[in-house]
Amino acid sequence: MTSNAFEELVMRLKQLPGLGARSAERIALHLLLERREKLDALVGALKTAGEKLRRCKCCGNLCEGEHCALCLDASRKHDVLCVVEEVPDLLAIERAGNYRGRYHVLHGKLSPLRKIGPDELNIATLSGRFSSGEITEVILALGNDIEGEATCHYLRETVIPQSMAVSRIGFGLPSGATLMFADPATLRSALSSRKHL
Amino acid sequence: MTSNAFEELVMRLKQLPGLGARSAERIALHLLLERREKLDALVGALKTAGEKLRRCKCCGNLCEGEHCALCLDASRKHDVLCVVEEVPDLLAIERAGNYRGRYHVLHGKLSPLRKIGPDELNIATLSGRFSSGEITEVILALGNDIEGEATCHYLRETVIPQSMAVSRIGFGLPSGATLMFADPATLRSALSSRKHL
Repeated sequence: MTSNAFEELVMRLKQLPGLGARSAERIALHLLLERREKLDALVGALKTAGEKLRRCKCCGNLCEGEHCALCLDASRKHDVLCVVEEVPDLLAIERAGNYRGRYHVLHGKLSPLRKIGPDELNIATLSGRFSSGEITEVILALGNDIEGEATCHYLRETVIPQSMAVSRIGFGLPSGATLMFADPATLRSALSSRKHL
Repeated sequence: MTSNAFEELVMRLKQLPGLGARSAERIALHLLLERREKLDALVGALKTAGEKLRRCKCCGNLCEGEHCALCLDASRKHDVLCVVEEVPDLLAIERAGNYRGRYHVLHGKLSPLRKIGPDELNIATLSGRFSSGEITEVILALGNDIEGEATCHYLRETVIPQSMAVSRIGFGLPSGATLMFADPATLRSALSSRKHL
């Protein structure tokens, strides 16, 4: 089992999000030995997708042409902008179904430890979007962690015009949850973001 | 997000073992938007591995030439054959480190529900291996489930010569486990495969 081609494939698979060494090995062996026809189909799908798809020049979402379907959709509000870390976050908000504004995908969040600064993120384009004057409200839909917090702070202080209405999405007990099983950090979030009745 | 190329790629990824819809979507977006250089590297690794690697003609293990490293290894015993379902099972036994015989990989197990009969498995080659008369002992290292049981029964009755010494690996409490946390099926296995002291 000391084939270079095999080790190389397992190494490449292991670098994908959510895949560990055992899963990568299992997938490689499945493609090479059990279902060889899937290997060619996967290579084809990767190449076609790689040729056709790229980041939307405006918001950073996945798209086939210059601009993504959400940016081109005239029925969506032009004045509200929701900033997210990654495209799966955007998809999650779309599934929630109650937001009808525009998006901006940062493709990450600030992280000094992982050497991710503002230049590594899709922030220059974000600054540009404010210059047209069309946007009046920004919703920061970043994760409830220290890096999300730092990124929101940076965007608010340095990137988003001071005149803009800026909010950050709410944190607390998830829908359907009971206090009994909530973790301490969630309960701290929930207590500090309590609402007066 | 209604790109055919994207849907096709997610569908192909979703068909890999251990990947669900959300993981497939996440991997596709990661390759297309976050780390595009990984896409080309992965395509290259898949193509190279696909060209170089195949099933060993003798045992079904992964190999670069006609025969795998384990079949070519003259220091391994020729008279004992360990039958496994998949290559990862073989790798697990190799990691355990106390088996020095040969292997045979079935590439699955009998499953009427999933329409997998003897012809879908690497069984014809197994029959052939017994005709040389070199093998005197067979260890069936198949899973502890109904399909594993049925496959062992089929091999014993139909494929393996009646004169052969055949055993099935032991079932029971895993190493380091306590009875308190063992599931009922494991305890049933452990009780029925008890050894007299």
